Amino acid sequence: MHRAYLKSPAADIQTAIDYLPHAEERLRKEVWQYLQSGSGQGLTSARNRKVFEDVSLMPRPLADVRGGNTRVELFGQSFSHPVILAPLAYQRLFHPDGETASAMAGVAQGGQMVVSSLASQLLETIIEAAGQPLWFQLYWQADRETTLRLVKKALSAGYSAVMFTVDAPVKQAAIALPKDVSAVNLEAPIALADATGASVVFDGWMKQAPGWDDLMWLRDQITVPLIIKGILHPADAEHAVSLGCDAVVVSNHGGRVLDGVPGSLQLLPDISRAISGKAKVLFDSGVRNGQDVFKALALGADAVMVGRPYIWGLASGGALGVAHVIRLMRDELEMTMALSGAKDLTAIRSGTYVYQA
Amino acid sequence: MHRAYLKSPAADIQTAIDYLPHAEERLRKEVWQYLQSGSGQGLTSARNRKVFEDVSLMPRPLADVRGGNTRVELFGQSFSHPVILAPLAYQRLFHPDGETASAMAGVAQGGQMVVSSLASQLLETIIEAAGQPLWFQLYWQADRETTLRLVKKALSAGYSAVMFTVDAPVKQAAIALPKDVSAVNLEAPIALADATGASVVFDGWMKQAPGWDDLMWLRDQITVPLIIKGILHPADAEHAVSLGCDAVVVSNHGGRVLDGVPGSLQLLPDISRAISGKAKVLFDSGVRNGQDVFKALALGADAVMVGRPYIWGLASGGALGVAHVIRLMRDELEMTMALSGAKDLTAIRSGTYVYQA
Amino acid sequence: MHRAYLKSPAADIQTAIDYLPHAEERLRKEVWQYLQSGSGQGLTSARNRKVFEDVSLMPRPLADVRGGNTRVELFGQSFSHPVILAPLAYQRLFHPDGETASAMAGVAQGGQMVVSSLASQLLETIIEAAGQPLWFQLYWQADRETTLRLVKKALSAGYSAVMFTVDAPVKQAAIALPKDVSAVNLEAPIALADATGASVVFDGWMKQAPGWDDLMWLRDQITVPLIIKGILHPADAEHAVSLGCDAVVVSNHGGRVLDGVPGSLQLLPDISRAISGKAKVLFDSGVRNGQDVFKALALGADAVMVGRPYIWGLASGGALGVAHVIRLMRDELEMTMALSGAKDLTAIRSGTYVYQA
Amino acid sequence: MHRAYLKSPAADIQTAIDYLPHAEERLRKEVWQYLQSGSGQGLTSARNRKVFEDVSLMPRPLADVRGGNTRVELFGQSFSHPVILAPLAYQRLFHPDGETASAMAGVAQGGQMVVSSLASQLLETIIEAAGQPLWFQLYWQADRETTLRLVKKALSAGYSAVMFTVDAPVKQAAIALPKDVSAVNLEAPIALADATGASVVFDGWMKQAPGWDDLMWLRDQITVPLIIKGILHPADAEHAVSLGCDAVVVSNHGGRVLDGVPGSLQLLPDISRAISGKAKVLFDSGVRNGQDVFKALALGADAVMVGRPYIWGLASGGALGVAHVIRLMRDELEMTMALSGAKDLTAIRSGTYVYQA
Repeated sequence: MHRAYLKSPAADIQTAIDYLPHAEERLRKEVWQYLQSGSGQGLTSARNRKVFEDVSLMPRPLADVRGGNTRVELFGQSFSHPVILAPLAYQRLFHPDGETASAMAGVAQGGQMVVSSLASQLLETIIEAAGQPLWFQLYWQADRETTLRLVKKALSAGYSAVMFTVDAPVKQAAIALPKDVSAVNLEAPIALADATGASVVFDGWMKQAPGWDDLMWLRDQITVPLIIKGILHPADAEHAVSLGCDAVVVSNHGGRVLDGVPGSLQLLPDISRAISGKAKVLFDSGVRNGQDVFKALALGADAVMVGRPYIWGLASGGALGVAHVIRLMRDELEMTMALSGAKDLTAIRSGTYVYQA
Repeated sequence: MHRAYLKSPAADIQTAIDYLPHAEERLRKEVWQYLQSGSGQGLTSARNRKVFEDVSLMPRPLADVRGGNTRVELFGQSFSHPVILAPLAYQRLFHPDGETASAMAGVAQGGQMVVSSLASQLLETIIEAAGQPLWFQLYWQADRETTLRLVKKALSAGYSAVMFTVDAPVKQAAIALPKDVSAVNLEAPIALADATGASVVFDGWMKQAPGWDDLMWLRDQITVPLIIKGILHPADAEHAVSLGCDAVVVSNHGGRVLDGVPGSLQLLPDISRAISGKAKVLFDSGVRNGQDVFKALALGADAVMVGRPYIWGLASGGALGVAHVIRLMRDELEMTMALSGAKDLTAIRSGTYVYQA
Repeated sequence: MHRAYLKSPAADIQTAIDYLPHAEERLRKEVWQYLQSGSGQGLTSARNRKVFEDVSLMPRPLADVRGGNTRVELFGQSFSHPVILAPLAYQRLFHPDGETASAMAGVAQGGQMVVSSLASQLLETIIEAAGQPLWFQLYWQADRETTLRLVKKALSAGYSAVMFTVDAPVKQAAIALPKDVSAVNLEAPIALADATGASVVFDGWMKQAPGWDDLMWLRDQITVPLIIKGILHPADAEHAVSLGCDAVVVSNHGGRVLDGVPGSLQLLPDISRAISGKAKVLFDSGVRNGQDVFKALALGADAVMVGRPYIWGLASGGALGVAHVIRLMRDELEMTMALSGAKDLTAIRSGTYVYQA
Repeated sequence: MHRAYLKSPAADIQTAIDYLPHAEERLRKEVWQYLQSGSGQGLTSARNRKVFEDVSLMPRPLADVRGGNTRVELFGQSFSHPVILAPLAYQRLFHPDGETASAMAGVAQGGQMVVSSLASQLLETIIEAAGQPLWFQLYWQADRETTLRLVKKALSAGYSAVMFTVDAPVKQAAIALPKDVSAVNLEAPIALADATGASVVFDGWMKQAPGWDDLMWLRDQITVPLIIKGILHPADAEHAVSLGCDAVVVSNHGGRVLDGVPGSLQLLPDISRAISGKAKVLFDSGVRNGQDVFKALALGADAVMVGRPYIWGLASGGALGVAHVIRLMRDELEMTMALSGAKDLTAIRSGTYVYQA
C-alpha cells in the first residue's frame, strides 16, 4: 500500500536530503533505483559529492550585507534565486501530478524549470499549470526533421528557451515504464538503425547521435536562447559558444552516463574562465543544499540546476514538497551568503569566498 | 528513569572522551542531539577532528624539563593551565546544578570559565559559586541599548572580561526548552524584524546582526578586556585587533554554524602570525584531550577553549565530572610536554614540536 | 548440491562484476578463495583497483565517431577487440568444460586466449575446440630440457605464440586439487631441489628459477612471438625487448605473488614510453570492465588481459558466461569510446582521453 | 576455561598475523587489551601500519640471487636473520613458560632476543634456557645507584648488550598483575617522588626521568654495546651516537606512549642518513611480516625488532609458536628478496627496492 503524501513538511526535515527517506518509502523499488543510481560502479556519483565536500567556505562575520538578495537575470528574465529545476524524465513515476506539480512549485518560488523531452505530461499542460514560460530540454530524435518537429511543438506551446542535452546519445539505465506513464510528447519510439555490423554502439546507437554540425543546424532553426547541456571539457564549451550557444551547462548528467568522469565542479572554474562574459554558465550534478549552490556560484556558475532533490520532494508531497525543497535551498543560500559576507550573486562570483588549504 | 550521577570517576575513564557514553545515557535524546550535532552534513565537525589528527608530535626523550609547568597569564590574571571552559548555553539542560557546577570546577582547577549570554542561571549566582571573577560571553541583542544593558549587568555582577561572539548572527539548531530552563539573564525574547520582504535571512535575521561599527561602539562602552570570538580569516583578526580587541578566539563554533568551513586549526598559524604580540590568540573547536591542547599551543594559541567535553563531565557527575575532565586534560598536556621536551607554554609556542611529514 | 549453470545471462547482469555472486554460489569455498585471494594482506589487489578508479575519463560529446571500431592487430593476426583471456590455471575447477569453454568463447567473440602451463585439459583438446591458434603460457620447468619439451609440445599442437611468465618463480597460494583435476600437460611434478641449507627460498625454490640467460636461451629456441609476462620495472621491459621479446605484459599477477607492489597501471605509462614502437605492450591486473580497458589503452597498452572476470562467467554458465563477459566488456569499451570521441584504438592511444586533476 | 595450546601450527596460519585470533581466544580480556592497545585514540598505532602499507616494493624477476642469504652481523656477533625479539614485559601473562620460551625460540631460529627490565622470570633463568648471551633492556630506576645495580645484575648473568629505553619515562597503560606474575628482577617498586606540587607529571614522574647526563654516566659504567631505544628525531640520534651509543632503535614504542607521533618508518631514512656508518640502526614499531622487514631494511635499518607478533605466537603455542612466527617472517623476507632481486642485506640497503609513485 502506498504511504499517504505529506500534507506539510515533516518535523524532521531541515534540508533537502531529509526528504530522501520519505521519498524512498513512497516509491516502488525499481523506480527508486532508477532515480538514485549512477552508471557503472558509481564512481562519478560519489565524486560529484566529494568535490563539493572538499571545497571550504570562509565565514566573514560582521560584514555589511544590508539589502542582500539572491536575484539573478538570465536571458532577459529575472528570477528570485538561481536554483533551476533540472529536466528529469517521466515525473509521473514519482507522483500522479508529475511535471505540472514541479513546474507550479518552481514558478511559485520565483525560479525556473526545464521540462524534459521525456516528460510524462503534455508540454501544453505543464506550461499552463506553470502560468508562464518554461524552458524545454531537447534530446536528439531520429533525424533533423523529427527533431525540428519536437522543438517547434515546444516553442508553439510557449517554451522560451531550448536546452539541448548532448552527453547522452546512448540510452542508459532505462526502466520498464508502467502503462500509464510514457513520453507523451514524442513521436513513435526511435527505431534503432539496424545493427548489421558487429558493433551495437558504432553501427547502432551512434548512427543517430548528433554532431557539431547538427548543433550548428539547430542554432539556425531557432531564435530563442539555446543552451547546451553536458559539457565538461573547456574546449567544448568554447566551441559551443563560438557556434552561437547562449549558455553552457557544466554537467556529467549526475553520474548517470559515463562512469569515471570527473566531478562536474572540478571543471567549472576552467569553463567559467573560458566563456564567462560571452555566455552564461549553468552548473549541474551533485547539488544537495544551499551551501552547494553557493560553492558553485563562487566557482563561476551564473545559476545552478538541481535534480534528484526536488524529485524527493515531489515523491513525498507533490508540488508542496518541491516548493519546500526549493525554499530550503534558497534559505540555505541566503544564510551562507550572510555568514560569508556576500550580499548578492555578483559579490559571490567576484569575491574569494572559497578557502584553499 | 534518570541514571544516578557518577559520585567519582568511573573505572573506564582514561580521557575526556570516555565520559561521552556516560553523558549520553543520562540525557534525553533531544538534549544529546542538541549538544553533539554539527550543522548541515557535519563536514566541519568532522574536519575539526581530522585536522588535529593530521598534526604529528615529535617526542624528544632525555630532555631537561625540570621546573616544568603549564601556567599562563591572560589579561593580568594568572592561571594554572591554559584550558578555558567555553560558553555553552543552558547548562541546566545537562545537570540541575548547571553553570554553577561548571564555574566551581573551572575555578577549583585553577582555570577560567566563560559564561554564556544564554546561561540558565543568574550571572550573580554563577559568579558567587565561583568565588572569583569569570568572563562573560555576549550575543548581540535587539539593538545597542539592549545589548549595553546586558553587558552592564554582567560587569556589575563582577565579570572581568567580555567575549563577543560574532559568528552566529543567525540562530541555529535550537531546542525546545523545558519549562524550568531558560535564558534567565536576557530581557524578553528578541522579536524578529518583520520579514515583509521575501528573504527570511536578509530582511529578517540579518537586520539585527552586528557589524564592524557595532564592535567599535562596544569597544568604547567598556574598559575590561574585549575578546572577539568566531574569527577564521586572518584579515578579520587583524581588523578586530586594530579596533582595540584584546584577544581573538579562532573558532568555527564547533561546526555548529556554517557547515563546510575549514577546521579552526587550519587557520590558527596564519592568525597567530598576524596578531601575535598585539593581542592574545585563543583557540576553540574540536579540542578533546591534552594532546590537542598541546598542538593548538604549538601552532600559535595562548590558551585553548573546550566545550562539549566538559559538558560530558557535567552531565555525568556535575561539578566533580567537570573538574575531572579539566584535570585529565591538564595531566595529558603535562605528559605531552614532558615527552616532547617542552617545559612551559613559552617553550611550546617558540619551539618546533610539530612534525611536518 | 551444486546450483545449475545459467542457461542465459541473468536479468541482474549489467557488467562483468555482476557475475561475481553467481560464481561464488556455484563454487566450493576453497576454490572461490583460491580464485579471488591476493597474496599477503591484499595490498596489491586493492591497489590494482584503486589506481583504475583514480583515473578520470573526459567525455567529448558531439564528436564524429562514424566508422568507429575496436579492431587491433597483434603479431600479424587481427582481432575484433583488444580483450585477451589471461592464462588462469586449472579451469576445470570452475566448470567441467574447463579451458575448452573459455577458448571457444574467446575465439567466438573475435578475441584471443592464452592457455596456462597448468591447464587442466590437453593442449590439443583446447586448440581443437577453439578451431584456431591460441597462445601458450609458459612456466619455467625443472630445467631447460624439460622446459623445451613443454614448449615444443605446445608448438606442435598449433599454439602460435609463447607467453613466458617470469614473476612467479616461487609457487604461491596453491590449492589441494580434486582427483580429476590436474596439470595434464606437465611431466611429473617438479621435485624441489633438496633444501639442505637453512633457506627454503634461496636453497630451494630459487635454484630452479629462470634467469635472464634462460630468457636468451628460450628466445633462440623458438621462432614464434615471445611475450614476457610479469614486468613492472621499465628497465626490465627494455632489457627484455633488447633480448628479442616481441611483447611485454605489464602485470603484478593480479596481486597474487608479491604483496605490496604498485598497481600495474601505475607503471604502464613509463613502460609504454620505454618500449612502444619496438614491442607490443599488453596490460594485466585489475581490469573489471570496458572503462578499465579504455583507461589501459589510453595509458599506453596495445591490448588488455582479463582474468578473474571471465572465470566468474565460466563458473556461472560455461562458454556462454565467458562469451557474455567478453561481449559486455567490448560493448562498454565501445560506449566509452563513443562518449569520449575516440573512434578507434589508434585514437585512444594518441589522444588525451584521461583527465588529470 | 583456557583453550589448549597449539601443538603444531594450525592449518590457517600463513603469516604471523594469522596467530592473532588464536592468541586472543587464549588470553583474558584485560591481558589482551594490555597487549594490543595503543595509547590515546590509537592514532600512532594506526600510522605505524599505514606507513608500511604506503611503501611499495618493486619486483625484479629473472635477477640472479644465487647464494642469497639473510645473515647479519651486529656487535661482532653473527645472526641468521635480522629479526630481533623486542623486550616485552611480563611474558608469563601470555604463557606459563614466559620469557624462557621466547628466548629459546629466538636463539633456536638463529636470532636474538632483548629481555625486558620487567621480565617475569629471573634474568639467569632466561639466559640459561637460551644457552647463549641475550641482550638486556633497561628502564631507568629510582636513581643511578639502583639503576647500576640492575645493569650489573644483567651483565653478571651474561647479557651481552644493554638496550636503554628512553621514550617511556612516564608509565603508561599498566595492568593489574595476577599474584604469580611480577617484575622479579627489580628491587622494591619505585616510590614516586612525593607530588607536593600541583603537577603529577613535572613534580612526580619526571623527577625520576633520566636525562642526557644520565646517558653519559651510563655509557661510562659499562663496556658492552649500549643501544638507545625510543628515538624519532634525527638530532637525538646523532646526539646519542656522539655520546658513545653503539646503536639507535628508531621506535615510537609501538604507539604505546605518546599518541599522535609519526609512524616510526617515516623517520627511519633521515636517522639512517644521520648515523649510518657510525652506529647501527635498529627499527621497531609496526612490523607484522617479512615484507615489512624488507621495507625497513630498504629504508635504512640494519636489523628489525618485532613485538606483538611473537607474543601472539607465544600465547598460542609457547616456544613453538614463537619459533614459527620468526620462521614465517624469515621465509617472507627471503621470498621478498628473491622476487625483488636482492640477494643479501647489503644489497637491500644499497639498492633501490622501494617504489616512489
